[in-house]
Amino acid sequence: MATGNINVAVENIFPLIKKFLYSDHEIFLRELISNATDATLKLKHLTNMGEAKVEYGNPYIEIKVDKEGKKLHIIDQGLGMTEDEVQKYINEVAFSGAEEFLDKYKDKVDDAGIIGHFGLGFYSAFMVAEKVEIITKSFKDEPAAHWTCDGSPQYTLETTDKKDRGTEIILHIAEDSTEFLEDARITTLLNKYNKFMPIPIKFGMKTETLPKPEDAKEEDPAPTQEVDNIINNPNPAWTKQPADLKEEDYKSFYRELYPMQFEEPLFNIHLNVDYPFNLTGILYFPKLGNDMNIQKDRIQLYQNQVFVTDNVEGIVPEFLTMLRGVIDSPDIPLNVSRSYLQADGAVKKISSYITRKVADKLNSLFKNNREDFEQKWNDIKVVIEYGMLSEEKFFEKADKFALYPTVDGNYFTFEELQEKIKDAQTDKDGKTVILYASNKDEQHQYIEAAKAKGYEVLLLDSPIVSHLLQKLETSKENISFARVDADHVDNLIKKDETVISKLSDEEKDKVKGLVEEVVAKETYTVQVEAMDSEAAPFIITQPEFMRRMKEMQQTGGGGMFGMGNMPEMYNLVVNSNHVLVGEILNTKTKKKQERLVKQSLDLARLSQGLLKGEELTEFVKRSYEMIK
Amino acid sequence: MATGNINVAVENIFPLIKKFLYSDHEIFLRELISNATDATLKLKHLTNMGEAKVEYGNPYIEIKVDKEGKKLHIIDQGLGMTEDEVQKYINEVAFSGAEEFLDKYKDKVDDAGIIGHFGLGFYSAFMVAEKVEIITKSFKDEPAAHWTCDGSPQYTLETTDKKDRGTEIILHIAEDSTEFLEDARITTLLNKYNKFMPIPIKFGMKTETLPKPEDAKEEDPAPTQEVDNIINNPNPAWTKQPADLKEEDYKSFYRELYPMQFEEPLFNIHLNVDYPFNLTGILYFPKLGNDMNIQKDRIQLYQNQVFVTDNVEGIVPEFLTMLRGVIDSPDIPLNVSRSYLQADGAVKKISSYITRKVADKLNSLFKNNREDFEQKWNDIKVVIEYGMLSEEKFFEKADKFALYPTVDGNYFTFEELQEKIKDAQTDKDGKTVILYASNKDEQHQYIEAAKAKGYEVLLLDSPIVSHLLQKLETSKENISFARVDADHVDNLIKKDETVISKLSDEEKDKVKGLVEEVVAKETYTVQVEAMDSEAAPFIITQPEFMRRMKEMQQTGGGGMFGMGNMPEMYNLVVNSNHVLVGEILNTKTKKKQERLVKQSLDLARLSQGLLKGEELTEFVKRSYEMIK
Repeated sequence: MATGNINVAVENIFPLIKKFLYSDHEIFLRELISNATDATLKLKHLTNMGEAKVEYGNPYIEIKVDKEGKKLHIIDQGLGMTEDEVQKYINEVAFSGAEEFLDKYKDKVDDAGIIGHFGLGFYSAFMVAEKVEIITKSFKDEPAAHWTCDGSPQYTLETTDKKDRGTEIILHIAEDSTEFLEDARITTLLNKYNKFMPIPIKFGMKTETLPKPEDAKEEDPAPTQEVDNIINNPNPAWTKQPADLKEEDYKSFYRELYPMQFEEPLFNIHLNVDYPFNLTGILYFPKLGNDMNIQKDRIQLYQNQVFVTDNVEGIVPEFLTMLRGVIDSPDIPLNVSRSYLQADGAVKKISSYITRKVADKLNSLFKNNREDFEQKWNDIKVVIEYGMLSEEKFFEKADKFALYPTVDGNYFTFEELQEKIKDAQTDKDGKTVILYASNKDEQHQYIEAAKAKGYEVLLLDSPIVSHLLQKLETSKENISFARVDADHVDNLIKKDETVISKLSDEEKDKVKGLVEEVVAKETYTVQVEAMDSEAAPFIITQPEFMRRMKEMQQTGGGGMFGMGNMPEMYNLVVNSNHVLVGEILNTKTKKKQERLVKQSLDLARLSQGLLKGEELTEFVKRSYEMIK
Repeated sequence: MATGNINVAVENIFPLIKKFLYSDHEIFLRELISNATDATLKLKHLTNMGEAKVEYGNPYIEIKVDKEGKKLHIIDQGLGMTEDEVQKYINEVAFSGAEEFLDKYKDKVDDAGIIGHFGLGFYSAFMVAEKVEIITKSFKDEPAAHWTCDGSPQYTLETTDKKDRGTEIILHIAEDSTEFLEDARITTLLNKYNKFMPIPIKFGMKTETLPKPEDAKEEDPAPTQEVDNIINNPNPAWTKQPADLKEEDYKSFYRELYPMQFEEPLFNIHLNVDYPFNLTGILYFPKLGNDMNIQKDRIQLYQNQVFVTDNVEGIVPEFLTMLRGVIDSPDIPLNVSRSYLQADGAVKKISSYITRKVADKLNSLFKNNREDFEQKWNDIKVVIEYGMLSEEKFFEKADKFALYPTVDGNYFTFEELQEKIKDAQTDKDGKTVILYASNKDEQHQYIEAAKAKGYEVLLLDSPIVSHLLQKLETSKENISFARVDADHVDNLIKKDETVISKLSDEEKDKVKGLVEEVVAKETYTVQVEAMDSEAAPFIITQPEFMRRMKEMQQTGGGGMFGMGNMPEMYNLVVNSNHVLVGEILNTKTKKKQERLVKQSLDLARLSQGLLKGEELTEFVKRSYEMIK
């Protein structure tokens, strides 16, 4: 039996790094700036601890494009490297300086701010450069070093005469990557990945307007000066303590995050936790309305102020991906599959922490300023309702602040609603029936009829409401929901009262027969019922169960299989106590009878939005004739 | 100056491979089966060339799960390895056997079927296994070898007594990866990645029903037997020649690809090109209707029959991502960013080849069976219209087969349409006005009015139609589009005819004043015009330009900034020649006059779908009174 060590052939690994290290080549800039940031932060720690006896000063990182020379420079003023350190950190691939640094000083510094973990980031330079130079001078009293490598495993290393502390990386950009010599491209990348990194990053100059001198005339132009263009905000709001931030600070950070977004957010939630995981961030509730689709994936994920991705699927519970803002955590494993993420214990904890914080914030908004919360309800309800459907824990919490608005603009919690309606709206079997409309216009006549009875009518118009009602009916006891047009008003909530019919049973049968002769049997089931004589003579209703199942299927998931394609079926309720119905019965000529039924049916269909196209044109024509 | 070689520390690379080689750990199985496939295909080539003097036979690859022993086995009957070859191919990371093989035999075999390229795939086993064994016997007359490695760089290698040719990989699955010991998980992975790989893959057994013996009684159960369960189809339709496939073969392959899809595709396009790039595949047009969103990302991308991804963004032009099917090409660079993909020359060529093939196929369908093409039009039009908007080359080709259906169900090409309508629908300035409706029901009255004039009315109801009209108006000369309710019918296409007014100018002004007193000025602009006395007395219209700009903004992109939020504005056209208008003028009491105007306005609003809510309820109530 032989034993041995697996050998990694360096000349084979290099092309792999170039092709596969990151699927996005543009990442190289983020990696090099992260290294420069680490080098600067390390120096800060060392000077703080007294291990480096130098002035820390106000270091920054500079990016320079030399388009003619086809070079890109990344220059820092951090701790730099000696020749020995270059040997150790650069010439040994996958030997991470950051890990070693953290090991050595783990009792003295926390790891906040140290980005590098695997020491491979530097080699990403070879994804875009045919040759890379490092010119570096350590804070220690040693000569500067100059390292050069053309992407083959061979390098050269020599002493050089750089005077200032820090490291300069020079990329000789390859032919296929000249896009990275364009100022606009670099600006885009800096904005995407480095906008909130902790060390100032300088890229070019910009013109700044100065205040006019006091003796200037009005027509004099304001004086200007050229100043360094710092592209990042090293101290973004989420890294600060909530106590140090005012409402306006949160709003202005929102504008920083989404400069193209003109609408202000409704409110924000500041996330800040150390244990059992490290997470900071600010989430914003934008105005959402009833649209559940377009706004997703606007939350940005950072690690130690470095942008990672704006796809937070698996990290943030799905219902909260409609929000906006920033999450920063070094504890979220990246480069793993989404399915793995969802199973990861730490990520699960993060996700449920975020859910809890959002629920708590909503609850405090509700308690502290109910009026304001009610005003915002329509813009936030899809998130809350979706959360109630998808996360049981959120459902329990939200039950206390989820609102049920009425068509008249009152807002009840579920408990308040139940208390308010239980006397008037409990049926003969002891079940409280909650009435709702999905559209104030389309269901106006039905709403009015229910209100006339003293019933409250909710206005529930979000796209997932049928799912939510289904959930509420199974979670709560002795309640059910019915849309106002699910039946005629006397049947919506069945009481032990009977309305006396002006027509005999025989006459009712006769009316039924007459109506059935005129209307389409496959669409309408005719019922003759004794109702209030003031109620409409013909009413079209659609049973709750069928309609809701169809809606659930159409909005995806739930409902009953195949229901989505069922034809529309309606009940046509004929009010035997209405004068017009008596008239129909007593009209002598068949033709006139038919005309009366048809016109009444058309009016009932108008009230349900069912009279369309040619039939509507005919109806309008007939009606012009009638008023002429 | 010193020179040296960059060193890759093997003990540092190993954890990196484990963490970063693939973001999806599940990929390991695809990689190991790809290796097994390569080993088998290489043997086939060698026996075909006479270089291997052994029987090729009917080799297959077997996957075995040993749940108790926590082991997963991948067993092939390919060419195997000698001890020396294990040293060379396994113990040297990133030394790809496939590359070497192709180099050596490049003149004799084409590369179709050889998957491995970088020799790293094998190491992905360590993403899920704490220990990996290889037991392998070469087709050459040499003893079998047994290699073992526990994920540290140290391995052992010894001779063993395996008799059968081929390689067995044994993964000792790690604690955090026990999901890969579940039959269901393995079945899912095999189905996802290996469903169409070229060597049969066996996983477990299945029960097959045999034909009953002739002398069996009717009540006897059919005999069954246990047979090997082969999970893949090694010869999927796209690898065959179009000439060898019938319509039914394409349909049955569609069912293989989308077993949960019950609807049949409308037609397919077989892609097959060798030069300047290698691409095969079959695209299907599903029934799309007017929904542009839900069906995306159903095209699957393969490389040499190995599934890679179902995200083909950047490879297939965006408008074709609504299609379904398979694309297989070894020439598409993977692991690069999407933006890089879009800039890549080869990918651009692939994308425009696909566009051309789709256009050609549509053109031939149109020419060979126009009736059938017309029937399918409604289900394919969104793809074609979107393509016309987004790809200029496709627009040019599609102009010959894109159809414009009328409300009466006739289908014209643009050229035919122009020919058909130019006499009746050219206005006094020589511009041909093409009339259209977006909804037959909602615009019924207007459609009827236009048809009564002898005009053709198109039915254009796809979600992007306003953008398409804009495009057509700028590409074609002397045409414009107007929706039937953009103006009253005499004004839609302005001719040199004048209708004599029954009312004097003074009377017209008086009518205008009367109407303006009743209707809301901020919504309606009142115009009194002399029209056909048979036309409606009141007509509500909405000018084309404003409406189209609003629609364009609402469907994303285009239009004019801010138009999306403009209030709805209408013209109210009063027909001075209608009897009713004369009556309004001559009615003595103010109250009756108002009632007439109001009822007429309500009827006009009904025709435009503008009478809603309380006003509709009032209207219905009033109308019941009137017929009573």
